[in-house]
Amino acid sequence: MKNLQVAFQGEPGAYSELAAFDYYGDQIKTIPCETFEDVFAAVSEENGKTIYGLLPIENSLAGSIHRNYDLMLRHELHIIGEFHLRVSHCLMVLPGVKLKEIERIHSHPQALAQCEANLDRLGVQRVAEADTAGSARLVREWDDRKAAALASRRAADVYDLEILADHMEDNPANYTRFLALACNPLSVDSPEDGDFKTSIVFSLHNQPGALFKALSVFALRDIDLTKIESRPIPGQLWEYMFYIDFAGHYQAKAGSRAVSNLKEFAPFLRTLGSYPRHHLKSVYADTT
Amino acid sequence: MKNLQVAFQGEPGAYSELAAFDYYGDQIKTIPCETFEDVFAAVSEENGKTIYGLLPIENSLAGSIHRNYDLMLRHELHIIGEFHLRVSHCLMVLPGVKLKEIERIHSHPQALAQCEANLDRLGVQRVAEADTAGSARLVREWDDRKAAALASRRAADVYDLEILADHMEDNPANYTRFLALACNPLSVDSPEDGDFKTSIVFSLHNQPGALFKALSVFALRDIDLTKIESRPIPGQLWEYMFYIDFAGHYQAKAGSRAVSNLKEFAPFLRTLGSYPRHHLKSVYADTT
Repeated sequence: MKNLQVAFQGEPGAYSELAAFDYYGDQIKTIPCETFEDVFAAVSEENGKTIYGLLPIENSLAGSIHRNYDLMLRHELHIIGEFHLRVSHCLMVLPGVKLKEIERIHSHPQALAQCEANLDRLGVQRVAEADTAGSARLVREWDDRKAAALASRRAADVYDLEILADHMEDNPANYTRFLALACNPLSVDSPEDGDFKTSIVFSLHNQPGALFKALSVFALRDIDLTKIESRPIPGQLWEYMFYIDFAGHYQAKAGSRAVSNLKEFAPFLRTLGSYPRHHLKSVYADTT
Repeated sequence: MKNLQVAFQGEPGAYSELAAFDYYGDQIKTIPCETFEDVFAAVSEENGKTIYGLLPIENSLAGSIHRNYDLMLRHELHIIGEFHLRVSHCLMVLPGVKLKEIERIHSHPQALAQCEANLDRLGVQRVAEADTAGSARLVREWDDRKAAALASRRAADVYDLEILADHMEDNPANYTRFLALACNPLSVDSPEDGDFKTSIVFSLHNQPGALFKALSVFALRDIDLTKIESRPIPGQLWEYMFYIDFAGHYQAKAGSRAVSNLKEFAPFLRTLGSYPRHHLKSVYADTT
């Protein structure tokens, strides 16, 4: 994995960058991108130089990041992996600062909201900033001993801050699912055997029972669906693109037959990728 | 409809207020609320005084307003109606100001984005504000002849501004679907005959084919589904609440049997309401 470059959205120290290191390994070079669009634009393959991407697609508390579903459709990239990051908001300060010195805690509004009960106990002022890693950067730039940030442990490393407490979030079931993106699909030796997940996107004719028929191609083959999401098709009033994740590889017998069956009546269908499944059990074991 | 009070989220002149007048009639008194939560809290019935609510649930370009799905589950209100508002962004200025005098256009970032091509042609600076109606208010407060706002025609009335152009949006298929909320369900004489829509929310056991089974209770009775949406259940990793809208009344034969059938295996199910269907054809006819 040497020389491997991975684009992510956010500043250095963002949760997406932490997830990129956890997923691709410590040796990668990360490329911070301002927008999700920029991540899609950065993923490429030229002269043996490959740039991968890592993109948040869903948080277990906040729900799907719908913009990334829309962008997936607009760009011809492939999903080659998934990764669940346990989100742990760390309280960080300039080295040597004590808890009682803190007067203000800076972070993204969602992070502040997720740590509400713990912050109530501290009884200090909350200040909303544009993002979590940016808050850590500000504490470092201001060189302010009265300011703290809520951000990832990676942000503390990047901006040389000290972590006073981790897992500040009130609800421990706080996970973000990331998708690994590449220019080419992942090639595997035996699609039939491995523990894979496949993501597809398709449209349906606006007819009674259309979605039922679509799901039946999986149910009748005992294929487990792990996710369904719908997004409006711009310009076609109240018509939707459906995004489905199912267990198995699209080149395995059951998966390929289900997809062919669905193509018989779906006006549009694209396979976004098959990739090794990242199980939640192992996530729990890894991080708690 | 005299003395009828309707709570909406936003400032006077917001699209939600425009929709409230279009849906409930000109005689209502509107109650501006800062947050969606506040709208839910305002809807009540006391001493013969009824407060209704009107809430955006989905935009045809941007998708569902997921927070309102979550709030619907948390509050014991009933859906008594639906309304589709054609979103027309109007360019408004102080009375007498000419197009060529404008140097800056203020609005919510989403409105600015939806009018991108038209704004490009004008070639003036765009300034992001907290909301559309607030931008109109600012233009009035500043008394600035170089500033314009993109907002609803209602906002022009409220802040006494002049509309230089309407339908500034690039994509004309820009509709927002609103739900009318009340403390009590809508009672109807003949649920079997009318043209109704029903909204329900339910959970499912995390088993292969569970959603397929759920949809089959509708498909096997030829009941048309008009919308499906899933939202994470906080604290239960990657488990979902499903929101379904189907054609017909929950007290009509087919609908009530389908719901009973679904209850046989759904651990949780709530009927959010049955209400007269607002057809898109009439929306098109009304406003284009």
